[in-house]
Amino acid sequence: MTAYNAPIRDMIFAMKTVGGFDRISALPGHEEVSEDLVEAIFEEARKFAGDVLAPLNHPGDKQGCVCKDGAVTTPNGIRQAFTAFCENGWHAMPAPLGHGGQGLPSLVSTPVLEMWTGANLAFSLCQMLTLGAISAIDHHGSQAQKELYLPKMASGTWTGTMNLTEPQAGSDLAAVRTKAVPDGDAFRITGTKIFITWGENDVAENIIHLVLARLPDAPPGVKGISLFIVPKFLVNADGSLGPRNDLVCASIEHKLGIHGSPTAVMSFGDKGGAVGFLVGEANRGLEYMFTMMNHARLNVGLEGVAIAERAFQQARDYAFQRVQGRPIGASSGAPIAFHPDVKRMLLDMKAKVEAMRALAYFAAGQTDIAQASPDEAEAKAAQAMVDLLVPVVKGWCTESAVEIASTGVQVHGGMGFIEETGAAQHFRDARITPIYEGTTAIQANDLVGRKIARDKGAAAERLIEAVRATAAELETSSDADIVALGQALTAPAARLQFAVEWVVANHGAAPAATAAAGVPLIHQFGITLGFWLLARQAAWAADLRDEKGADQAFLKGKIALAKHFAGHVLPHAEGFFRAATEGSASVAAFDAAGI
Amino acid sequence: MTAYNAPIRDMIFAMKTVGGFDRISALPGHEEVSEDLVEAIFEEARKFAGDVLAPLNHPGDKQGCVCKDGAVTTPNGIRQAFTAFCENGWHAMPAPLGHGGQGLPSLVSTPVLEMWTGANLAFSLCQMLTLGAISAIDHHGSQAQKELYLPKMASGTWTGTMNLTEPQAGSDLAAVRTKAVPDGDAFRITGTKIFITWGENDVAENIIHLVLARLPDAPPGVKGISLFIVPKFLVNADGSLGPRNDLVCASIEHKLGIHGSPTAVMSFGDKGGAVGFLVGEANRGLEYMFTMMNHARLNVGLEGVAIAERAFQQARDYAFQRVQGRPIGASSGAPIAFHPDVKRMLLDMKAKVEAMRALAYFAAGQTDIAQASPDEAEAKAAQAMVDLLVPVVKGWCTESAVEIASTGVQVHGGMGFIEETGAAQHFRDARITPIYEGTTAIQANDLVGRKIARDKGAAAERLIEAVRATAAELETSSDADIVALGQALTAPAARLQFAVEWVVANHGAAPAATAAAGVPLIHQFGITLGFWLLARQAAWAADLRDEKGADQAFLKGKIALAKHFAGHVLPHAEGFFRAATEGSASVAAFDAAGI
Repeated sequence: MTAYNAPIRDMIFAMKTVGGFDRISALPGHEEVSEDLVEAIFEEARKFAGDVLAPLNHPGDKQGCVCKDGAVTTPNGIRQAFTAFCENGWHAMPAPLGHGGQGLPSLVSTPVLEMWTGANLAFSLCQMLTLGAISAIDHHGSQAQKELYLPKMASGTWTGTMNLTEPQAGSDLAAVRTKAVPDGDAFRITGTKIFITWGENDVAENIIHLVLARLPDAPPGVKGISLFIVPKFLVNADGSLGPRNDLVCASIEHKLGIHGSPTAVMSFGDKGGAVGFLVGEANRGLEYMFTMMNHARLNVGLEGVAIAERAFQQARDYAFQRVQGRPIGASSGAPIAFHPDVKRMLLDMKAKVEAMRALAYFAAGQTDIAQASPDEAEAKAAQAMVDLLVPVVKGWCTESAVEIASTGVQVHGGMGFIEETGAAQHFRDARITPIYEGTTAIQANDLVGRKIARDKGAAAERLIEAVRATAAELETSSDADIVALGQALTAPAARLQFAVEWVVANHGAAPAATAAAGVPLIHQFGITLGFWLLARQAAWAADLRDEKGADQAFLKGKIALAKHFAGHVLPHAEGFFRAATEGSASVAAFDAAGI
Repeated sequence: MTAYNAPIRDMIFAMKTVGGFDRISALPGHEEVSEDLVEAIFEEARKFAGDVLAPLNHPGDKQGCVCKDGAVTTPNGIRQAFTAFCENGWHAMPAPLGHGGQGLPSLVSTPVLEMWTGANLAFSLCQMLTLGAISAIDHHGSQAQKELYLPKMASGTWTGTMNLTEPQAGSDLAAVRTKAVPDGDAFRITGTKIFITWGENDVAENIIHLVLARLPDAPPGVKGISLFIVPKFLVNADGSLGPRNDLVCASIEHKLGIHGSPTAVMSFGDKGGAVGFLVGEANRGLEYMFTMMNHARLNVGLEGVAIAERAFQQARDYAFQRVQGRPIGASSGAPIAFHPDVKRMLLDMKAKVEAMRALAYFAAGQTDIAQASPDEAEAKAAQAMVDLLVPVVKGWCTESAVEIASTGVQVHGGMGFIEETGAAQHFRDARITPIYEGTTAIQANDLVGRKIARDKGAAAERLIEAVRATAAELETSSDADIVALGQALTAPAARLQFAVEWVVANHGAAPAATAAAGVPLIHQFGITLGFWLLARQAAWAADLRDEKGADQAFLKGKIALAKHFAGHVLPHAEGFFRAATEGSASVAAFDAAGI
């Protein structure tokens, strides 16, 4: 397999052109975030990702995790890498200020998280889950809970998990059955949780499980679920470790990918009940989980970006090294990257990756504005934008990552099918991303129902207005390429508008049809918005070309890539649009029993 | 994982409606092929596939093959299954008449091969490769070679392989370096071959390797390659086994999928030279290989159909068994198949599988007409149709199989990512099909260059004329659904015509652009032709509905499925058309060094 080299230049370009870096570094609390600082952080992160994490990715996949008598052993080198990761401050970096974190804007921490994920998806999940648990306790826990748990979780001394899924409760958390019975100031938890990422591991001194469970008097359904802290080792008041709690990793899953990430079946209360501590108020657990949902889903969308970038780098490096045949218009002995179809595949991969990254960073920037803007209207508009974009970033970037990783295998020909080559791992690893943290169908329901129909398309139409404004602006450019990009954006923007109107018109009367349309709509939104941002990047690049000392090749590449996207990816948005708006009645009409 | 139940009814329906069964069973030599005979054969094959081969698929994937000191051990049960397969006559069935085979038309043997592949892709490859070797010897070998090798290869007592690829010669066989030096009546072969499917195994008494190699005085490039028979054990004149030949399986590959199929690195001549026997004339080896190419590529396209059907069955069975949430418009406790998006995924899978099957069977039927029609013009037209369709069947059915298997994983949610579930294996197994026997790019070059540009679109236009005729015919139906299907076919047929004209106009002047357009064109052709045949099936179904005792649910299902394809899959043909014809200049223009 090949190395991973985080594309810092592309990342910073996306941050500046579409991520809103100038606005965000001017927000209260982020004044010290300069481009120099960002570059310095990214350069160190790039080194750690490339030198430490990436080389462990393939061996970790091959070796996998082992569970014996409830103890999990992670692959060789992972413990040491995790220790170094924590010692260098990378684990704590995105944690909240005041608990060890650096309080950097999401726009800055997002590319860093992309680097960890691109280097080693399985490894990165440990921090990702811990950050989620930190966020839940930080937002909803008591002051005592924050003080007791957060500093050590931020530093990575302890890791965190999210225990939601049960065998009978996957996407439908209303069916959660794990019980919590009051016992003095605490609770006794009994039940089985599955698919618990890093649910047991050998990298941390303690594991802080966040567990959804029902109190004895809880109402049925989603309004009767409470959230509990259930530590692997109970923690004494002074922060030292007390006795082992009554919970155990019953087994770990044998999975298609992310073999380096232990996915645990957790058994709580086999010996009478694990001690748990209520977070916030009773029966509000699901609501608390949902406050973290946006962030978690954006992060999984970002995983799609990262694994796609990694798959692209693997394919590109192979295609420039492998000599085979004589490419049309090239000399004998030229590498396969010069064969038109291999070139097309590489360009498809790169164009999609950059569009996905642009969308993910745009959403990250909007998160920062929503959280830190002193202008209430601006903050509110940004939050509405984030809410709308979350299902698109999560759904589109992850579905696309699977396709891109598949193309990455294809670029290698027969070697792609050999595990030692490394391309196949990305194909296997990527496959989890459209599933966990809400399948693409769940994202689609969210987009159609909560994000479009509920406000009658208001937020979506504001976004489409911005897309149209870009199209109009680009059409006034003095650069013919940019004019063409603006023109190419016009019809897809109109179709986005039609799609929104169609959802609003039909969601009440034909909910089964709009639900069947959701996933095609996710693709339509993703492709169109991805192109919108690539076109903005291209326009920016065109402007920069006149500056003294500008890197013409880099800037020209951005314009050419947007053109490639316009030619090869954008046309598919219409197919998804038509499938969604014209084709979904046939789904609703089909007698399921006849399938 | 779930069982595999070959969809005999769908298969026979496709054979009759679009495969040309009536015409083919009237061809000289096929007069005894009745529908009753076909049903009887299929029913026995269905049982063997479902009862014997399918249950070994998942365990074989898990266990894999082992190579030790040059000997390969296949997974538990495979040897016994292969013996039973041979004893029941299944191995010999598709072999040529006169060497143990039954001389059935391709249209009849094709569904049977689909069943073996659907049940156990890894297992089926052994027969598939042996049939290829049989065909090469049958067409190009001497009478003595045929008598010595073919009966035992047909019966499965001996298996066969195709040794083409070398480390430096993948898609580009001009780079083959394996040497053949004359030694009396025979030759001494030295060289290394990779990716040799079933290159070493424990199911056969002997393995007849067909090896591409160069004679000392051979011209460079593809015109200097000869074909040799290189048996694992030399065969005495009486057919008994002689001494072990100087060839060895150096290792087997650790692959993404088809773990039950040993993929060997073969080393010839480590001890001075393996004894090989020239097939046909010197320096014509590649030409001989190409005479089998159509058949081999159709078979790999069929693998795409088969694995997609298997993935569909797995997903459908899970979706009707798993209860989660309350589907829109359904009662609580309904299985997830009733959730609109799960239903959409299942319908997408099924509609694509049936379109792919229709196209593969149509091509198989055309093969029979080409081979057996006494009407020379009919035979010639059918051969031209086969030649045109081969890259589409191979390219589109295999690329689609990967997508369908991916959707199959998605239907399962988190369970799809767990290997024990079985969906992930199909996703891994399917991934080889767009690669071997010529990658999709190779198919695309074939379609664009040899099949469209060379005859200036003549064969393609005859095919498109047939598509148009269907559209016109359907529009005269008394059934509104059928009229709508005919109407839906009109614009895609016109775009196929535009695409062909574009290729013809540009192939000479802009070969890099038409080469970059090839894969999108494969998709455009596949989707449009697949819909053409589904629409014909639907029209046939509409006609049959008036017959007494007709199975209304089955026939209605065919019409509904074609409608679903029209709504959800067909719109994507235009995206591929636009990518091919409008987008490919950007590929040619992009500076590869900037990727």
